[in-house]
Amino acid sequence: MREEAVDKVLNILEEDFSAALTRLFALLRYKSISTDPAFKEDCRRTADWLVEDLRTIGFEAESHNTKGHPIIIGHHRQAGAEAPHVLFYGHYDVQPVDPLSLWAHDPFDPQLEERGGHKVIAARGASDDKGQLMSFIEALRAFNKAEGRLPLNVTVLLEGEEEAGSTALLPFLREHAAELKADCALICDTSMWDRQTPSITMSLRGMVGEEIIIKAAGRDLHSGYYGGAAANPIHILTRILADMRDESGRITIPHFYDGVEETAPQLLADWEKLQLDAEHFLKPVGLAQAAGEKGRGLAEQIWARPTAEINGISGGYEGEGFKTVIPAKAGAKVSFRLVHRQNPLKIRENFRQFVTSRVPGDCEVEFREYGAAPALSLSPTSVWVQKAQKALSAEWGVPAVLTGSGGSIPVANDFRAILGVEPLFVGFALDDDCIHSPNEKYELRSFRKGQRSWVRILAELAQI
Amino acid sequence: MREEAVDKVLNILEEDFSAALTRLFALLRYKSISTDPAFKEDCRRTADWLVEDLRTIGFEAESHNTKGHPIIIGHHRQAGAEAPHVLFYGHYDVQPVDPLSLWAHDPFDPQLEERGGHKVIAARGASDDKGQLMSFIEALRAFNKAEGRLPLNVTVLLEGEEEAGSTALLPFLREHAAELKADCALICDTSMWDRQTPSITMSLRGMVGEEIIIKAAGRDLHSGYYGGAAANPIHILTRILADMRDESGRITIPHFYDGVEETAPQLLADWEKLQLDAEHFLKPVGLAQAAGEKGRGLAEQIWARPTAEINGISGGYEGEGFKTVIPAKAGAKVSFRLVHRQNPLKIRENFRQFVTSRVPGDCEVEFREYGAAPALSLSPTSVWVQKAQKALSAEWGVPAVLTGSGGSIPVANDFRAILGVEPLFVGFALDDDCIHSPNEKYELRSFRKGQRSWVRILAELAQI
Repeated sequence: MREEAVDKVLNILEEDFSAALTRLFALLRYKSISTDPAFKEDCRRTADWLVEDLRTIGFEAESHNTKGHPIIIGHHRQAGAEAPHVLFYGHYDVQPVDPLSLWAHDPFDPQLEERGGHKVIAARGASDDKGQLMSFIEALRAFNKAEGRLPLNVTVLLEGEEEAGSTALLPFLREHAAELKADCALICDTSMWDRQTPSITMSLRGMVGEEIIIKAAGRDLHSGYYGGAAANPIHILTRILADMRDESGRITIPHFYDGVEETAPQLLADWEKLQLDAEHFLKPVGLAQAAGEKGRGLAEQIWARPTAEINGISGGYEGEGFKTVIPAKAGAKVSFRLVHRQNPLKIRENFRQFVTSRVPGDCEVEFREYGAAPALSLSPTSVWVQKAQKALSAEWGVPAVLTGSGGSIPVANDFRAILGVEPLFVGFALDDDCIHSPNEKYELRSFRKGQRSWVRILAELAQI
Repeated sequence: MREEAVDKVLNILEEDFSAALTRLFALLRYKSISTDPAFKEDCRRTADWLVEDLRTIGFEAESHNTKGHPIIIGHHRQAGAEAPHVLFYGHYDVQPVDPLSLWAHDPFDPQLEERGGHKVIAARGASDDKGQLMSFIEALRAFNKAEGRLPLNVTVLLEGEEEAGSTALLPFLREHAAELKADCALICDTSMWDRQTPSITMSLRGMVGEEIIIKAAGRDLHSGYYGGAAANPIHILTRILADMRDESGRITIPHFYDGVEETAPQLLADWEKLQLDAEHFLKPVGLAQAAGEKGRGLAEQIWARPTAEINGISGGYEGEGFKTVIPAKAGAKVSFRLVHRQNPLKIRENFRQFVTSRVPGDCEVEFREYGAAPALSLSPTSVWVQKAQKALSAEWGVPAVLTGSGGSIPVANDFRAILGVEPLFVGFALDDDCIHSPNEKYELRSFRKGQRSWVRILAELAQI
């Protein structure tokens, strides 16, 4: 595309910005909490809204029923057989909002606010991922308005279970593989390096999610009469969870580090320069020291080392005051972040064995699984990466950096394995967006310049 | 008292049994959950009902306001200066009812049911302690009806915070020490040995209750982006709680066993005969093996050894599904049961030091205390014990046994220390009454024969 053509599209974005914000607010009002069955109908309505919106941009779009929440496919294929074909992936579901008491306002009543000197859109999902996916869709809308077409062929895939293990997505991808085939998958669910510097994420950790429930007596017991004689499932649980890590922060589950490589010295040296240390990364959240494996830098801990985190624990009396009870059961939710060639299925198996071997003979353990995906890394020589880097640098006025991420986007592995499509991770979230936390926000600037960035990236990719 | 006089009182009990049941049901309908501030008004109304009831039996009774829930004192002092004076203690408050879903019906809608071939009164507090305290009060009512007086002087003390640490009671006892002075304190909050065999409890464990809250980051964090670098308060908490006990089940808190004596071989031999083993004590609640200190029998574990039990734990995402969060805080409620000369205040101090030393420098710990009482044991040569044993044996047709209990009744220590009154523990609960648990019950037989037992005991004690 010629530069004037790009400028024309960018101008349309600026003119339409207020309307774009209204559309995003409408999307944010839907309570699409995927993990909680109570919000099933809200998820369906969110999907319906998105299908309608895609159709107004000229997409052939459909909402497909699944065993879980609906998955949307939209096609815009008028750029011709010679033009590249990109598959855009986003998710319309959001995390639960608890603890609700910590929110400054209703998480589903989006507000434009001033925070730390910056204008922000505050709502659950503002950043993860409704704000990010609408940044992309607004770019498409502007192209369509300017030229009645897009510069390349675009298929949009929007799912509603990213925050709940994406269980319906895998069979769906297999079933629709032919329809979803593309040259590159654009995934807009990652962060900028900082407020000024755009970033392309080159590696992501994998993830295994597990819930364990330890069951002891058939009912709650009085801790005076039974204490010292009856098995306490909270004791058993805390012992197991504490045993998972040794004093150096290393995970003790057998074979956990199989497939983990030592980070190349050159990469460690590069990361050193980024000053990703406790002062910059932990101080803003009120912490002072890296809590992971001893002897490794913070960047290595979050980008290149696997973890075992307890995401929730529950058992016995949790209300106000005190109750002298030995509960019948206690449970915890645990997630493992994986790197390199760690095998998520083997890690699940070894973890279960690790737990089971520590449960006394008269107690039981129940497991529930929540997703399993290996780690992923991309090649810096990819032409898609290079074109995107050029476009991002042009929009932001500083070179876009290539970084790792401690997070996981399991769908990227599936795109590779099932569709044979390489992913490209570009995103405009910031580290302080409070995703998954109370008072989530997306910067107004991320929304505006995110749209502009996608216009420039799509214009560049159209030339491949 | 002559035997015919006792029989007359027992006959009145039988005639009035249906009315007594109606009164107990009325008391059980009050939601007197002391630990939860939401039920403050319910506790006050419960106290008012009891004061009115005591007055109908000829008591001078008053409800006294405290910083916590009201404390009731009632006097019936027409037996003459020569007659013995007993102080009866009971509590009108009850434990919380959660998990409510496990109850077969509303815990505050008492029902007469058949359970395991026995008629039972099912409701929260049916056994602990409303059913037990009304067993005593009905005995007084029958004496009063038969003779217009009681065979000895009786002071009744009913508190409303036994399940919440009895914080108001201690200053109240000091303030009313002169008014509460008596020759013996009758405490009806313990169990029968089994369905056929009455029991006098000769030793009780002490207790220290503590809540700990570990605080890490200033907000919940995403476990992908921050995992491996940010302190996870659930990890810190589980490590601390697991560290409290070693592999042999011994508590590792420094100086924890100071003041603990080895059990005399003769006592161990006596306990051996009671067959208080896993088969009899744990199998009914679905367990098979004693979980306490290795190398010690079950009776010793619960009667003569101290414990550390986790009564509740909470942190992170506890709802349905999964949330990849590192929470800002996590907490647990822990109670210690004490024996012999263990000092509860020193144990609290050593526990706090044990916890604090394990919290990383950039995290915080907050403590909340819930009561502290030393262990207690009585002399088998006491004339009060011997008279009560005679009366119980007469009512039940089998010799009453002298046993220990793993539970704690902190008020008994206060009666000794402040009032100089020795306690006598007689109770008609059964081990399967599910006190503190869903579906609490009191056997109809316990209610009937408990009343009869008290008539016989009071008649015996009147002769001292």
